Amino acid sequence: MQISSIAIRTIRKITSAGNNEQEDSIAVEEPLEISVSYSENSVPVKKSISVTMRTPGNDDELALGFLFTEGIIRNNNQIKQVSISILDENKILVSLHDGEIPKLNTSERNFYTTSSCGVCGKASIDAIKTTSLYSIQADGISISQSVIFSLVAQLKKQQEIFESTGGLHASALFDLAGNFISLREDVGRHNALDKLIGSAFIKESMPLTDRILLLSGRASFELIQKASMAGIRIVAAIGAPSSLAVELAEECNMTLIGFLGKDKLNIYSGFDRISEI
Amino acid sequence: MQISSIAIRTIRKITSAGNNEQEDSIAVEEPLEISVSYSENSVPVKKSISVTMRTPGNDDELALGFLFTEGIIRNNNQIKQVSISILDENKILVSLHDGEIPKLNTSERNFYTTSSCGVCGKASIDAIKTTSLYSIQADGISISQSVIFSLVAQLKKQQEIFESTGGLHASALFDLAGNFISLREDVGRHNALDKLIGSAFIKESMPLTDRILLLSGRASFELIQKASMAGIRIVAAIGAPSSLAVELAEECNMTLIGFLGKDKLNIYSGFDRISEI
Repeated sequence: MQISSIAIRTIRKITSAGNNEQEDSIAVEEPLEISVSYSENSVPVKKSISVTMRTPGNDDELALGFLFTEGIIRNNNQIKQVSISILDENKILVSLHDGEIPKLNTSERNFYTTSSCGVCGKASIDAIKTTSLYSIQADGISISQSVIFSLVAQLKKQQEIFESTGGLHASALFDLAGNFISLREDVGRHNALDKLIGSAFIKESMPLTDRILLLSGRASFELIQKASMAGIRIVAAIGAPSSLAVELAEECNMTLIGFLGKDKLNIYSGFDRISEI
Repeated sequence: MQISSIAIRTIRKITSAGNNEQEDSIAVEEPLEISVSYSENSVPVKKSISVTMRTPGNDDELALGFLFTEGIIRNNNQIKQVSISILDENKILVSLHDGEIPKLNTSERNFYTTSSCGVCGKASIDAIKTTSLYSIQADGISISQSVIFSLVAQLKKQQEIFESTGGLHASALFDLAGNFISLREDVGRHNALDKLIGSAFIKESMPLTDRILLLSGRASFELIQKASMAGIRIVAAIGAPSSLAVELAEECNMTLIGFLGKDKLNIYSGFDRISEI
């Protein structure tokens, strides 16, 4: 059984023109359990890592993107196989090659609690800087603001599923000239980004230093953390960023743009990469 | 030190009128660690339950609302004290009276995995129906669609912080005549709802059967789960619902409205409670 990403239901629609019942498309939300199997001292181990509420589709990308952005796996060569349970399409298993051990102590929860200072955003940021694979260095990237403005119309065009249900978050990658590369959608914004990064991970195109990431909604700490793990330097969001998202972007030498419209935007960090011409 | 819910930062703003640097308000996002302490066989126990990324403010409500909607605590009489660490405002401890044991095996993760059918939405729904305190029974509630339409303008008026940062989700309660009761905001939509339910929990006004819940964004499974735990029968969202949110609402005999505007709305379940006049 293939689980669809859209469900059809009969709803009652009320407008100023009156009431009627009709069929409508709704974004599907179902849990996905992500597990990892590996050998430790020749003993096979299988561990359930996470259950996330997601829109079915591209589940292999979601699983790999999640494990990568959490720092649990580091590269494609570690992966032996990704398998979806025949009995339950909401269970996915990532098997590692012999000798490959997942870094389970770097999972997301620990980002918040590893520092001696206790629970705070600063500790979370420090933990991510330590975990990230890609060192922060000068990149000389300069992009015209007109390229950034052009992303809005491109996102709208690509978000076909969004148009039909209105219920999905999207993440999209563009090259530095503003050419569309890929887009993923999900009821959860973190899942959409995990799928997008997972698709690049499968193609072995990490790090994504020469890509612009576009987010259809708000930019939270979690999304900037994932972008940072993938080596992305420019993130633009249609919605608002949070304080910790801005702080992390600044620490990672990332350009963070919010409230992106077709002729307006706010830059929160890394001002110098965006030029007027 | 009081952590503010709004941070001021210098941003670069680009519009068709030109570029300039100016100060802007950003919604604060910081982690909060929620712990519970209690006595088991006269032995004091302290357990860290969750770390959530939230906007500081109303943290006592957030902690109690989270513990209540996860089924870990059941009523106000169990609570001895709620204390925020003097050294770290991102740590909050809920202490229970002697003899009160938190139900830690009903935490959110388990909603997805307790059924023999494996990981699926149906299992999640069944688990919630078993965990909920309030039985589903006929309530005879009937509300005019004009009352529902009136909530949009009221939400806008109440969302003062939202107006300044554009970065916060809101949850609000109204009585069945459409009178405003309370509103809470957060960078995380689940936190905004936990704060709102937590504020009612503190006032011992559970269940919220005679309230309408308004959500500023989309209606996910998690939000409907929390509303269901609080006995809410009518939920209206400005955004789209997910498939599993609609299924859970239907199973819980809840009226779920989506895409609410000032003169239009979609009803996804419990059609009969909304009347034309």
